[in-house]
Amino acid sequence: MPASSLKIGMIGLGVVGTGVAKLLFEQQERLAKKAGRPLELTKIAVRDPSKPRDINIPDSIITSHWEDVVNDPSLDVVVELAGGTTWTKKAILDSLASGKHIVTANKALLATHGKEVFDCARKYNRCVAFEASVAGGIPIIGALTQGLAANKIIGLRGILNGTCNFILTSMSETGDSYQNALEEAQKLGFAEADPTMDVDGTDTAHKLAILVQIAFGQTVPFSAIDRVGIAGLNNIDIHFAHELGYGIKLLAEAWINDGKLAVHVSPVLLRMHSPLAQVRGAYNAIQVIGDAVGDTLHYGLGAGRMPTASSVVADIIDIAVGRAQNTFTSMNLWSDSSSVTPMLLSDDVNSRYYLRLLVEDKPGVLADVTRLLANHQISIASIIQHEAQGENANGKVQLVIMTHLSKCGKFKAAAKELTRLDCVSGSAVHYPVED
Amino acid sequence: MPASSLKIGMIGLGVVGTGVAKLLFEQQERLAKKAGRPLELTKIAVRDPSKPRDINIPDSIITSHWEDVVNDPSLDVVVELAGGTTWTKKAILDSLASGKHIVTANKALLATHGKEVFDCARKYNRCVAFEASVAGGIPIIGALTQGLAANKIIGLRGILNGTCNFILTSMSETGDSYQNALEEAQKLGFAEADPTMDVDGTDTAHKLAILVQIAFGQTVPFSAIDRVGIAGLNNIDIHFAHELGYGIKLLAEAWINDGKLAVHVSPVLLRMHSPLAQVRGAYNAIQVIGDAVGDTLHYGLGAGRMPTASSVVADIIDIAVGRAQNTFTSMNLWSDSSSVTPMLLSDDVNSRYYLRLLVEDKPGVLADVTRLLANHQISIASIIQHEAQGENANGKVQLVIMTHLSKCGKFKAAAKELTRLDCVSGSAVHYPVED
Repeated sequence: MPASSLKIGMIGLGVVGTGVAKLLFEQQERLAKKAGRPLELTKIAVRDPSKPRDINIPDSIITSHWEDVVNDPSLDVVVELAGGTTWTKKAILDSLASGKHIVTANKALLATHGKEVFDCARKYNRCVAFEASVAGGIPIIGALTQGLAANKIIGLRGILNGTCNFILTSMSETGDSYQNALEEAQKLGFAEADPTMDVDGTDTAHKLAILVQIAFGQTVPFSAIDRVGIAGLNNIDIHFAHELGYGIKLLAEAWINDGKLAVHVSPVLLRMHSPLAQVRGAYNAIQVIGDAVGDTLHYGLGAGRMPTASSVVADIIDIAVGRAQNTFTSMNLWSDSSSVTPMLLSDDVNSRYYLRLLVEDKPGVLADVTRLLANHQISIASIIQHEAQGENANGKVQLVIMTHLSKCGKFKAAAKELTRLDCVSGSAVHYPVED
Repeated sequence: MPASSLKIGMIGLGVVGTGVAKLLFEQQERLAKKAGRPLELTKIAVRDPSKPRDINIPDSIITSHWEDVVNDPSLDVVVELAGGTTWTKKAILDSLASGKHIVTANKALLATHGKEVFDCARKYNRCVAFEASVAGGIPIIGALTQGLAANKIIGLRGILNGTCNFILTSMSETGDSYQNALEEAQKLGFAEADPTMDVDGTDTAHKLAILVQIAFGQTVPFSAIDRVGIAGLNNIDIHFAHELGYGIKLLAEAWINDGKLAVHVSPVLLRMHSPLAQVRGAYNAIQVIGDAVGDTLHYGLGAGRMPTASSVVADIIDIAVGRAQNTFTSMNLWSDSSSVTPMLLSDDVNSRYYLRLLVEDKPGVLADVTRLLANHQISIASIIQHEAQGENANGKVQLVIMTHLSKCGKFKAAAKELTRLDCVSGSAVHYPVED
């Protein structure tokens, strides 16, 4: 075992970076034992060196220029925790070119520039480790690249965004509106001031692109991932879902269907007893189904300082013992040898659907709606219409329909036509339904 | 990447062995891609070569002598799936001595002779991989050795025996007696003809000993693991647990308490909404709590042909790419450098308890029982006594008490005294209670 220390530089000292520094400084002995040699954090590039931090870091290792990290010839590894896809991409490519391994949590960069980054690493015979880029502390990258390596993955679905799951859990458990739940999440630090990338499904889709690369060996262009977020989700739908025995979760899904690969991000009605439906608050979980192993679930905190730092430091240890290099070479991700399974068009995805319409409370409405669905060969599994109550009803009533399996394209066309009926107000709200 | 194939010999072609052979023969291309080179199963030792099997294996690679595998100089890896601790130990030690890596699912051997096996591997510079020895297809060994390597593990608890969980699930969902549920499990192939090692907690304790070695770096003598199984568990206790909002699961637990290591295997009342309480049938799950990552859960099928084969073949791939060797060296398990955290005596474990007594239905009984508990400073959290009903009551009634935290030794002494009261029939039944 090499006794020389592994020299580490870090770019970014925000929430996760501080956690990584904390582990590397405060747990030296225990980490050295796991890594077979000391892990030495010797340079950190930060945006603002004068910013107060709740950890003591010697001034001598702090720099405000990321180039100082990239160009330091003594470093073995660069840990990139700054995020973004502009100068951080350059920082990573330059670090690789100068012979450093990379540990990163940057899902956006991998999802959109994975091939460029990995090709560069291959060119310079270095590796890129990225356990922290998906689902924070959950070792899902390791599970897919190693523990489940004997399997052909049939499908995976996951709750990959803690902010969204926190908001959905609040809405579900307190009856709060989306807006109130979002503000509560912001107050508690579970949502950022600008939560757009989280609540519109972008962050979830980035993570899905990474999981698909590993699980199916396929590079899916980010634009090919059908995305619906949770922004503006109406708590009346959560209420109806409960009544029907379901919860609503923002799921990232990828599965093989008749030899084609289907991927999407969407709020989904999940049967209440499903393990994923029971994932609460800022937790994440990923269900992976393999042809040999069957059904597995991987659960833990999907974000936050120490959980994400746990994965970053695990990657550093993997590099110190040489495993990450082996994995990088054997997996050959984002390479020309990637699979090219044809994509299943979202219109061709078969699903059951939840459909909610605000309709006039008068004779013939149900007949019109169900006739239109029948004309599209969409079969109704169950239906809820409660008696109109109170003064807010305005002669209108919520009509909720659960369908049997239908092609997505056909269902959406029907939903569009429904909103054109005179008896229907506003848009049809609909979500896929799963077990 | 080395292009030469990895030559594999296997000892044992039972349920799991057949699954491994199936994967290695039928998924050659996909596995070679993951392993960076072909995986070639070239020799299999079986007890009875003439036994019909549901897989086509060339006669030329079958032998009835395990020595033929051990002594074959062309092999790189020996996969031991015969189980037991007598001749299989010799087969493994001899294989290591002749320069072969080992992949094994043999939890009994590792739990009781881990040091001898690992010392031998170190001596000959070979590695032992054992993902399949705990929780079948769940990659929990990988998670502990790698994904969670940055953590100090604070505690873990798991459902590690599919047979027991299948029986408990049946009892819980159908109201079946233990005996009927066991017979049903045997009929469906979820329990062996002689289920002793499963239902008395031995198998679970073997697996716990392995997890403790990895999570806490400590060799716990098998005899030091306090064990209570599920044999003879009364479904009346499952019924009362439900009424109180709990399920009963056979848990393996290990945690650090005031600098001491506590370990035990026991049926435990788990609050119904706890993720572990919801693990049904033959599934396993392990909850691992780390100081950085927080709470994680790892869930999947804990036994069976293909799930266990999934883990065996993952280990073979890990050896082919060189990761298993790195892990073996850096973890240095079952070595002289193992930790020696003092053990917490089971009498000193603090727990809440479920206590059931069959008592006479007459004045003063409740006063006697509660007075005795009070004398032992055991505080009552809740109590259930239903009205005696029907002709079977015989003037007796079940009294169920949930306690607040109490030291195990003190509680057990009180329970023993309770059974000596004239008003109490038979033994006090008691289980720990957890969230």
